[in-house]
Formats: sequence, structure tokens, C-alpha cells
Amino acid sequence: MTTGSITLSDDPLVRFILRRADDALVLGHRLSEWCGHAPLLEEEMALANIALDHLGQARALYSYAAEVEAAGHDEDAYAYRRDPVDYLNLLLVERPNGDFAHTIVRLWLYSAFMSLWWQAMTASKDAQLAALAARAVKEVAYHLRHASNWVVRLGDGTPESLRRAQTALDLLWPYAGEMLTSQPDEAALTANGIAIDPETLRQPWLQRITSDAAQAALRLPSAPFSQQGGRRGNHSEAMGHLLAELQYMQRAYPGAQW
Amino acid sequence: MTTGSITLSDDPLVRFILRRADDALVLGHRLSEWCGHAPLLEEEMALANIALDHLGQARALYSYAAEVEAAGHDEDAYAYRRDPVDYLNLLLVERPNGDFAHTIVRLWLYSAFMSLWWQAMTASKDAQLAALAARAVKEVAYHLRHASNWVVRLGDGTPESLRRAQTALDLLWPYAGEMLTSQPDEAALTANGIAIDPETLRQPWLQRITSDAAQAALRLPSAPFSQQGGRRGNHSEAMGHLLAELQYMQRAYPGAQW
Repeated sequence: MTTGSITLSDDPLVRFILRRADDALVLGHRLSEWCGHAPLLEEEMALANIALDHLGQARALYSYAAEVEAAGHDEDAYAYRRDPVDYLNLLLVERPNGDFAHTIVRLWLYSAFMSLWWQAMTASKDAQLAALAARAVKEVAYHLRHASNWVVRLGDGTPESLRRAQTALDLLWPYAGEMLTSQPDEAALTANGIAIDPETLRQPWLQRITSDAAQAALRLPSAPFSQQGGRRGNHSEAMGHLLAELQYMQRAYPGAQW
Repeated sequence: MTTGSITLSDDPLVRFILRRADDALVLGHRLSEWCGHAPLLEEEMALANIALDHLGQARALYSYAAEVEAAGHDEDAYAYRRDPVDYLNLLLVERPNGDFAHTIVRLWLYSAFMSLWWQAMTASKDAQLAALAARAVKEVAYHLRHASNWVVRLGDGTPESLRRAQTALDLLWPYAGEMLTSQPDEAALTANGIAIDPETLRQPWLQRITSDAAQAALRLPSAPFSQQGGRRGNHSEAMGHLLAELQYMQRAYPGAQW
């Protein structure tokens, strides 16, 4: 069993897949941090189910990356055995959970984008990605419904719940633009119909967010999408803590062999 | 919305239901503590799924307790708003997770019993409990299969994994007897065919455990089942920490209303 970190591939398709796998892994991890801390049993189960969907997507994507890269890495090598700069997830998903409103607003911003993204990916020329997308669209439809219902409920609830939801939106907004931004090394994949240029989803995403926000009496911030870098491996301090936790077992017991 | 602790009912049926709901809640919580810490992505998802099954069982049982008690408590009041002495779960399920072997050995000891218990409960004269049992038997069959496969894999693995599994079994064994022990206030329910006397499951449980242990090259301890008390509300220090975490959100935001 190999131990130690694996090297990030230069293959644009591998990186394209790992970006979305890392988003799913990291958000799944954040959501699972709510286990045993949710305000209601029903919500505890909902967040755990949504976390599981993301872990399932991460596994499927890592497995496919392994097949494409063909360097002998398995899903666990990708998930647990990379250096922090070699994770390519959005800064948005690595943000700490904050309070419940913060967790829900992040899930809403992300799921509103991913529901469009997976929908578009069902038409990918890459048959395996299209097949993964066909399954993921159903999952993300539920995530978005759950999150946007909560956003409306919080915004339309008490003055305190509205204040918390608005604060969360103001804090998270600068991070939302990274998912809408084209990555230079994905241009050829996009031209070949394998990948999606996320810029093409910017308007429909903004429409959905604007409409939900109006229902929730939330103000859309005018701040620029200033926080980017995760897609290139430039992560925040929060990601270091998250990885320390995530990688602990693999580092302590390489290959989980005692 | 009422806040503060609710009082534990004297009704034997309510207590009978709460005992098993509390087992499921507490074990579900312990299993969910592995979220983001499991040694492999596949195992991460398996433990999260098993945790979810337990939370689902807890919710169903709390809802039924609410119906029987008819004191206006909802599932969340039972789950989050009791004083520590009013939780009636086994000491076994509140033990800290320890290492992976420890978590798996506990799940195995418990699931081997619960698979027999739910099977017997499908014949309960209480139609609602029988219906819950019909669903739970399928879930627990998977939990037992997962746990016993791992026990064999650990016992039959490296000297270190065998040593860890044996240590876990030695440490947990004194706690295993409480689930096999009749509770005086359940005698009438048992006589009426509503409840099961767990003593009647002692032999089949021991048979299953003995057979699995033999496959795993594990020695069954000869220590007595000396650790009991949870069923009467006498909990260990570990339970206090667990409840502090579990109840935090409800205590901080009563009724989860901001």
C-alpha cells in the first residue's frame, strides 16, 4: 500500500472531475459536521441525507477520475492523500458552517448553481459524466428545494431569523462568484462538449436566487464576487483545519491497515 | 412553545418505548460522530447510513411515545428536552466510540441483539410497534451484516487489528448484559404480548456472538455483565458530555425559534 501524498494530475479532464468531486467532498464534510447538532431531529436527518448524497457524488467522481488518470490511485487516495494546495474545491464550500442560517444560505447558493450545472451536464459528450449527472440532478433538486424552503422560512420568520439569514447572505456573497467563473484549462473540454462553461449559467442562477430572495424578503448584496482561489488550490485557513480532520485517519493508519 | 425539561412518564408502555428510542438516538449520535473521520469513503458512508437508520427509528418511536403519553410532547421534546436521569438507554450505547474496532464491536454486540429483538417484536400485540418492527428488522439485518463482516475482517486481519478488536470486546463485554436483562416495570407488558422479555433472547444472542467470534479468532470474555444502570437513568459521565452536545441547539434556541 502506497502512503504519503499523491501528485495532482495536469490532465484537464482529471482536474475538471476533481474540482467537482472536491466540492462535493468538502461540502459533504461541512454538512456532516451538523450531525448531532441540528436544532430538530427531522432537520438532523435531512442534513445527514444531503451530506450522504454529496459523499456519494464525490466517490463516483473520484472513481471516474481514477479511471481517466489511470495512475493507480483509488477514490480514497484522491479524497484523503493530497496536499492542501492540490484540492480544487470552491472557497464557498470550505467556509465554516457558522450558524444554521449560514449553513442553509450556503447550501442554497451552491445548490441553485449545481442544479443548473448537473442539468447541463446530462448532455455532456462524456457518457460517464452524463450518466453521473442524470443521477445527481434528482439529488440536487431535493437539496435546492430543502435549502430554498428554509431560506424563505427564515427570511419570512422572526426579525432575528431574517437578520441571521441576511447576515449569512452578506458574508457568503463574495464567495458565490467563483462557481460562475470559467477556468482557463477547461476551455478545450467545453469546446468539445464535455464540460460546461459556468458563465453560461450565471443568468439563470441569478434569476433563481433573485426570485427566492424576494420571497424571503432578503436583499441581494451589491458586493463584488471578490473571493476566488480554491479552484486553483489557493485555500483559506479553514480548509487546513478541515483537511487535518478529514485526513487524520488515513495519515494515522495508512490505507486503513492496522 | 414550552421550554425547559419535560417530566418522564410513569406509564410502563411509554417507558418501554422510550428505552428503545433512547438507545437508537444515542447510538445514532455516536455513529454520526464518525462523520468526516472514517478511514475510508465507503466506510464513512456506511456508518452515516447506519446512523441515519437509528435516527429514523428514534423519531418513529418518539412519535409513538407522544401518541401514547398524550401529554402534548413532540418527538423533539423527548429527544432534546429531558434531564440526563430521564434518558433510559443502555450504558453500552453511550460508551465513547474509541477507535474504529471499538465502534464496530459495539455495533456488532448491539445489532446481534436488536436483530433478534425486532424480529420478536414483529409479533407484538401492539400493532404500531409490530409495524415499526417490520421495517426495523430489515435495517438491523444490514447493520449486523456490516458489523460482523468487519469483526471477522479485523480479527482475521493483522495481529494489530486482532489485538484492537479483542481489547474492544474485553472492554465492552461487561456492558453487554444490560440489554439481556428483564426490566421489572415491563413484566405486565410482556405478559400481555406487547413487549418481549429480553432474557428469552439471551441464548440465541450468545450463539450468534460465539459463532462470529470463532470466525474472527476472538476470545469471548468470561467477565460478568457487571455494568448496568442506564435503563433506570443511572448514566456514565460520557452520557453527560453527549447530552450537552445533543441538547445544545435546543437549549440555545428553544423550539428552534430564533
